[in-house]
Amino acid sequence: MDIVNVHGGDIYSFEKFSEKHIIDFSVNINPLGVSKNIKKAIEKSIYDTERYPDMYCRELRGKIAEKENVGRDNVICSNGAAELIYGVVSAVRAKRVLIAVPSFSEYENAARAFGAEVIYYEMREEDGFEIRDDIIGWLDNEVDIAFLCSPNNPDGKMIKKELLEKIIEKCDERGIIAVIDESFIEFVCGGEKLSAAGYCKERSSLFVIRSFTKIYAIPYIRLGYGICGNVDIIKKIYKVLPPWNVSGIAQAVGVAAISEKEYVKKTREYVKSEREFIENEFKKMGIKYFKSEADFILFKWEKEKADKLIDMGILIRKCGNYRGLDEKFFRTAVRKHEDNVKLINCMKNIGV
Amino acid sequence: MDIVNVHGGDIYSFEKFSEKHIIDFSVNINPLGVSKNIKKAIEKSIYDTERYPDMYCRELRGKIAEKENVGRDNVICSNGAAELIYGVVSAVRAKRVLIAVPSFSEYENAARAFGAEVIYYEMREEDGFEIRDDIIGWLDNEVDIAFLCSPNNPDGKMIKKELLEKIIEKCDERGIIAVIDESFIEFVCGGEKLSAAGYCKERSSLFVIRSFTKIYAIPYIRLGYGICGNVDIIKKIYKVLPPWNVSGIAQAVGVAAISEKEYVKKTREYVKSEREFIENEFKKMGIKYFKSEADFILFKWEKEKADKLIDMGILIRKCGNYRGLDEKFFRTAVRKHEDNVKLINCMKNIGV
Repeated sequence: MDIVNVHGGDIYSFEKFSEKHIIDFSVNINPLGVSKNIKKAIEKSIYDTERYPDMYCRELRGKIAEKENVGRDNVICSNGAAELIYGVVSAVRAKRVLIAVPSFSEYENAARAFGAEVIYYEMREEDGFEIRDDIIGWLDNEVDIAFLCSPNNPDGKMIKKELLEKIIEKCDERGIIAVIDESFIEFVCGGEKLSAAGYCKERSSLFVIRSFTKIYAIPYIRLGYGICGNVDIIKKIYKVLPPWNVSGIAQAVGVAAISEKEYVKKTREYVKSEREFIENEFKKMGIKYFKSEADFILFKWEKEKADKLIDMGILIRKCGNYRGLDEKFFRTAVRKHEDNVKLINCMKNIGV
Repeated sequence: MDIVNVHGGDIYSFEKFSEKHIIDFSVNINPLGVSKNIKKAIEKSIYDTERYPDMYCRELRGKIAEKENVGRDNVICSNGAAELIYGVVSAVRAKRVLIAVPSFSEYENAARAFGAEVIYYEMREEDGFEIRDDIIGWLDNEVDIAFLCSPNNPDGKMIKKELLEKIIEKCDERGIIAVIDESFIEFVCGGEKLSAAGYCKERSSLFVIRSFTKIYAIPYIRLGYGICGNVDIIKKIYKVLPPWNVSGIAQAVGVAAISEKEYVKKTREYVKSEREFIENEFKKMGIKYFKSEADFILFKWEKEKADKLIDMGILIRKCGNYRGLDEKFFRTAVRKHEDNVKLINCMKNIGV
């Protein structure tokens, strides 16, 4: 029953190592770590543990609404972004779901869990896994939900603005719920301009998913949110989610996080610079990688070589279980400089 | 959209009061508060916020399995007990659900959210809301899930052992999943002996729900678990729940909580004594109440009088929205002695 974790971050399965010795490049958490203000919010919340959390996350939703320039009723908070993936499929009782692959496997898991048929739109290695204009033709009346991830996990590609607009327009026209998962967009320089969130007001079939987990380095706490112009969709999702789904600590942390604009800005610059450092090293080593705008990089390597990394205390994400990829693909997080140097040195020692 | 909270604990809706001035008798949290060891676990977990939680709660499930004398695979942890109510209905795609009422409204909400038809078995005021033997006749082939709450919310009655055995046997015979919600059983003196958990090994259709929230006073954190002899049911529930549904903090708190046997024992004795104090005062005041074994008491009063309590800074649970009750029913938590004295004094001042 202890099914193998198909995602990154499962240091718990590496019981032979003390967790302290593993540098985990398999998860894509802010390399600057948790900010002081967020730590303070967690500390403070210890005194509130005996209270029930606000079932409707009113304060937090208000803050998010202000940041995203939408109404509070257009925002729904969740126990991690993943809960909304399951929530939306279940809420609208989707029968047919389109997923652009390779991508985060939970779209597929959620669709199957609720009995939906899954259709795959394939992004290609030769396009650098960029989504193509022909996706428009796939958005027909048979599809209930289209899942697109931007920047995409595992390659970090953003959907180009022009194509994004066309996708949203077509979905709206056909009554398809376009779920744009922007869980990593806060890491993208200029991400606000590339986000789909701004279209929520005019396009009621659009549902944008965001995550606090990655950018604020709080995977341990779990917090995500969705933005949707159509309040009916949000109401339907509320119905299938359990009450008090967002813990009090997560709400307190979320409220503190919203003000961390400087920290987010600093993170973006740091990630950009470190991403370029790794890319340059990859280039020198002749390793094929895919240009990313997020805090992780998809690259190709030999499985036998990659296997040696774990013995050196380095965990990267094997991508063989992504639909559309094979065991030659790996994803590494962009971490702190000293960690990134260690990754590169280990890879050099193993030899390309 | 800020739907009125149908449960207790919604001090957030009383924005006109500073929350500090309200004594909340509408939620049934351990009056002894959070234990030192649990507080320590929360404090310690601040240093772990950048880690992903274990998706499978392996350590915590192991501890629970040991306590409940079942296999680790027979245990599933959840984001509060409520998540399992939704999880089980959704996982088995229940078409028809039997609910013994009055009871916790989330059984009904969960059933409706996933399109199941709901049948109500009515417990009667004249029986003190005790479940009767004739429930057996309701357990027929048409029912997929039967929800029973023991001790029942809002009246605190336990299902008698003999009847419980008959119910479990009949459900097993007919392939009905008997969901016994024991969220408050840790407050019951001799609760272990009355629990359904011991039957999980031999009765594969039995699913027992437990909560950490109430007994360990951690509603802010969210943690529940389920025990089931049939691992297939647990696997199905995993499929419909999002990954990482149990936060790292909740897992750390749960592990610390399992060892708190003395604290639970002390709580039971304290609650019993305070429950008797309130009951005696009710008796003297001529207020009709229903004998409870949990940390709350259902009683009857006049709505007009009860409305005055909130102006005195006291929030009790109005029970008019429980199916089978009307606006003359109220539920009060058993709190600390000084709080309970205040409740009684306020009620006396209002006048019976």
